[in-house]
Amino acid sequence: MKTHADQDVLGKVNIIRIKGETAHSEEDIVVREHTLSLYLDGRLYTQMLCTPQHLQELAVGHLYSEGVIRSMREIAAINQPHACAVEITRHAPDSKAVHTSDAAAAPARTVTTGCGAQKSGAYAQLAERMQQPLPIAEKFSLRDIMEQARAFQSQSELFQSTGGVHACALFEGQEELFFREDIGRHNAFDKVIGAALLQNVALPGKWLLTSGRVPSDMIIKAVYAALPLIVSRSAPTLEAIEMAQAQQITLCGFTRGDRTNIYSVPERFEERM
Amino acid sequence: MKTHADQDVLGKVNIIRIKGETAHSEEDIVVREHTLSLYLDGRLYTQMLCTPQHLQELAVGHLYSEGVIRSMREIAAINQPHACAVEITRHAPDSKAVHTSDAAAAPARTVTTGCGAQKSGAYAQLAERMQQPLPIAEKFSLRDIMEQARAFQSQSELFQSTGGVHACALFEGQEELFFREDIGRHNAFDKVIGAALLQNVALPGKWLLTSGRVPSDMIIKAVYAALPLIVSRSAPTLEAIEMAQAQQITLCGFTRGDRTNIYSVPERFEERM
Repeated sequence: MKTHADQDVLGKVNIIRIKGETAHSEEDIVVREHTLSLYLDGRLYTQMLCTPQHLQELAVGHLYSEGVIRSMREIAAINQPHACAVEITRHAPDSKAVHTSDAAAAPARTVTTGCGAQKSGAYAQLAERMQQPLPIAEKFSLRDIMEQARAFQSQSELFQSTGGVHACALFEGQEELFFREDIGRHNAFDKVIGAALLQNVALPGKWLLTSGRVPSDMIIKAVYAALPLIVSRSAPTLEAIEMAQAQQITLCGFTRGDRTNIYSVPERFEERM
Repeated sequence: MKTHADQDVLGKVNIIRIKGETAHSEEDIVVREHTLSLYLDGRLYTQMLCTPQHLQELAVGHLYSEGVIRSMREIAAINQPHACAVEITRHAPDSKAVHTSDAAAAPARTVTTGCGAQKSGAYAQLAERMQQPLPIAEKFSLRDIMEQARAFQSQSELFQSTGGVHACALFEGQEELFFREDIGRHNAFDKVIGAALLQNVALPGKWLLTSGRVPSDMIIKAVYAALPLIVSRSAPTLEAIEMAQAQQITLCGFTRGDRTNIYSVPERFEERM
C-alpha cells in the first residue's frame, strides 16, 4: 500500500499586522486545508475538511474510530486519486473473533450520501450567494472592534470556570446582541445565528467575534448570514482567507490585546492603514 | 415559540492536581456536553455534540448555516422534548424571492439518517467494547509523560508557523511512534490511529498526547483503539471524564509545563499520589 505523497500544507498571504498604533503590510504563513471525499465501497461516505497530509491515514483512522473497520484486514483496497476510496470486505477475516454478533459482522451501517450531500447541498446553494460579494457599505472602527475583542475575552464565564468552550458574539456596530458558548466552535457560531433568527434580528451587516479558528467552513457560514466582518482570536486557513477576499468579507485573526492580523478587505476599516 | 430552558452546563469532579512535585486532591468544575438529535420533518437529520444551552438556537442556526433554511418563515414548527424536531415548509414563502431556482425552492437535500446513523452505528459497536474496561496492566511514569508533553509542545512545526493546527502523538512507553497535525483535532487523532493501522502497529496499550479538548467523542476513539492513557493540553468534559472512569482509561488534562490534572484512574501511574 502506497503512502500518499504530502501535498503543500502551507500558503503565503499578504496581511496587515496591527500592533498598538502601528500597521505593517507583511507576508504571513498560513495553513492550507483540503476537502477529503471518503468513498466506501463506491459510495460517498463522508467529506472531511482537513490538512492535506497523510490522507490515507486519515481515511483508515476515521473508519476505525467510527467502528466501521476493526483492523486493516477488513480493507480490500484504498485508491486515492483526488478523493479517497476504500473498499472493505463484507466478511472480515476477524469478524469471528472477539465480536461475533451479526451486527458486528455486517457492514457497520448503510452508507448513503447523507453526510456528503449535506455539504454538497450547502455548497450548491452557496454558489448562488457567491455571485454577490458583500458591498463595502458601512465602515467599521478597528479601534472599537479591538476594544470589543478585549471585552469578549473576559466575558466567557464557562471558559473561565472550565477552560473547555468556544465563544461567539454577534454585534451591531458597537452593540453586542448575542453571546453564546459551546464545546464546539461551529455550535457557538450557529447559536448566535439561531438566536438572531429566533428573535427576528436581521443578519446582514452584523459582525462576529469568535474564539475559534477560521477554516473555510466558518466563512461559508458568514456568507450565508451576509456578515461583512469576522474577527477571530485564532488562526484562519489559506482557503478561508481566499474565500473571504472573493466575498469581500473582512477577516481578522490572532486578535489579542492590542494586536490583530487583517487578512482581507482592510478598506472596510475607517482607519487609514 | 418558547426558548428552551437552560439545562445544567457545569459539573463537579474530583481530580488530582499535579504541580511540580506536589499532588493535591481537589474538586474541579468541568463543562457538560449534550447530544442533540436534530430531526427534520420527522427524520433524523444529524446529531451534534454540544453544550446543553440554547438548543433551539443551535438547531435553527445549524439549518441556516447549512443552507437548509433561508429564514424563520421556512420553519413551520420546532418541538423539543429530548431531541429537536424541526418541520420546514415545503414551499417557503420567500422561495420566490432572490433565489428562484428549482433546487433552491425544494428542500435542500434528501434527508436520510446517514449522519445520525453514523454515530448510532459507532455507538452500537461501542456498547460491545464498553463491557470490557481496560485492565490496569502496565504502569506509566507521570514524570516521563510530562516530559513528553513538554517536548510535544515544541514539536509542532505547522503550529509554530501558522498557529492554526492541532497535533496528536501516539507513544509506546517513552517512544513516540507517530506525530500528526491537522486543522481538526479529530483528524489529527484519526491520522495517528490510521498510521498505526497502515504500518501494522498494534494499538492496545499505546498512549496518546493531544493538543485539543477532550469531549466524549475523543474517549470513544480511545476505547476503540484500547488506549489506556490520554493526555491533553486542554480541557475534558464531564461526560468524557465519566466515560474514561467507566472504561478505566486514565485521562489527564491541562497538561502544560510542570502541571497537569488527573481526571480518572490515577492508579495507572507508578508515582504515589
